[in-house]
Amino acid sequence: MCHAGAVSEPSTIGILGGTGPAGSGLAARLASIGHTVVIGSRSKYRALETRDELAERWPDLDDRLACGDNAAASDADIVVIATPWDGAAGVAQENADRLAGKIVISMANALVRVNKEFQPLVPPRGSVAAHVQAAVPRCRLVAAFHHLPAAELGEIDHPIDSDVLICGDDPESVREVSAIVDGIPGCRPLDAGQLSNATAIEAFTAVLLQLNVRYKTRVAPRMTGIADAS
Amino acid sequence: MCHAGAVSEPSTIGILGGTGPAGSGLAARLASIGHTVVIGSRSKYRALETRDELAERWPDLDDRLACGDNAAASDADIVVIATPWDGAAGVAQENADRLAGKIVISMANALVRVNKEFQPLVPPRGSVAAHVQAAVPRCRLVAAFHHLPAAELGEIDHPIDSDVLICGDDPESVREVSAIVDGIPGCRPLDAGQLSNATAIEAFTAVLLQLNVRYKTRVAPRMTGIADAS
Repeated sequence: MCHAGAVSEPSTIGILGGTGPAGSGLAARLASIGHTVVIGSRSKYRALETRDELAERWPDLDDRLACGDNAAASDADIVVIATPWDGAAGVAQENADRLAGKIVISMANALVRVNKEFQPLVPPRGSVAAHVQAAVPRCRLVAAFHHLPAAELGEIDHPIDSDVLICGDDPESVREVSAIVDGIPGCRPLDAGQLSNATAIEAFTAVLLQLNVRYKTRVAPRMTGIADAS
Repeated sequence: MCHAGAVSEPSTIGILGGTGPAGSGLAARLASIGHTVVIGSRSKYRALETRDELAERWPDLDDRLACGDNAAASDADIVVIATPWDGAAGVAQENADRLAGKIVISMANALVRVNKEFQPLVPPRGSVAAHVQAAVPRCRLVAAFHHLPAAELGEIDHPIDSDVLICGDDPESVREVSAIVDGIPGCRPLDAGQLSNATAIEAFTAVLLQLNVRYKTRVAPRMTGIADAS
């Protein structure tokens, strides 16, 4: 799917918490479409381990995968926060000066499992994304990637059949992230409005996980009624 | 799509608040697949007006469309509450004795529009559906139909291309509602677990409305990754 004016130039993208399932899956996926990815972690050694594992599995990606601590990853042009939700605002704040002025992508969902139920938590500012934005007011926060199954993200030989809901208070930043998403085979970026919508987008992930358990699969959402994301 | 054991027998379905866009659209849709529908309203005269309008537009449905006040509609086998969200628990409570023991379907979303944003409200018990269940503890509450565009519901000559997320605390009731949804052309029922999930399902409607405005369309969700809702 190619939208006029929406083709993204290859960027350098840092991933804080890039050693977890979502972060490492996203790292491989973004590298596979031409971006240079800096995998970050609290421990630069763990980041190196993840980097080498990915490069071993996909040698073609080797020269597009870098690594370092979270500060090093924060020096990239665009930064994704892929830590568990309760670490997202903290790691952003620790690197606030490096993140100032940049697009920062929040993808975490605040969820707990209570017995057999996945329950969304509502952080004090309404969403993990809003919490991160408040922690680093000078960054341009964009919420995206909440509904993509982590395992599917990392299976770069297969397209991901999903719409990606993207929201944020700076329309230009939303457009830039949309262009990146548009480069991922099978993914369609959808402009979901302002950052306030992150609350419902994050919470809805609990429903998707519930469906995963019930149907023994990994679901991802598609919106009918939108012919093309122009 | 036909799932073994999931074919619904025609039922008599009452719709409280059946004169609004969602209620009258659902009335036409359910009558079109063989159910007898009792359109209810605070005013039995308004219910009659809606009934006659639908029967005039679709003469084939005439003998499957009945009407009355909300109490009369509450006497049906299965009852849908299609009032605006802030009237749902009240109308349920007024008819509590009639609804006792029955499947009651809550479809309302608590939303407000603030400037250009649709914002989900969180009712005291977490969802409109949970509020209705609390108002009529003896009913078997099922939440469904939140994401279907009202106008599309009423366009019975066209299938609705959507999954319908269904949740509730009584699995047998969820199955019965799933069977009804399965009879609607284009709709696939999905078991979304317990009633707690209604919170995120209702809130997510705000995101869908945002997409409708942004893309000048009416969206509905589909889940990829589920081959068949068995």
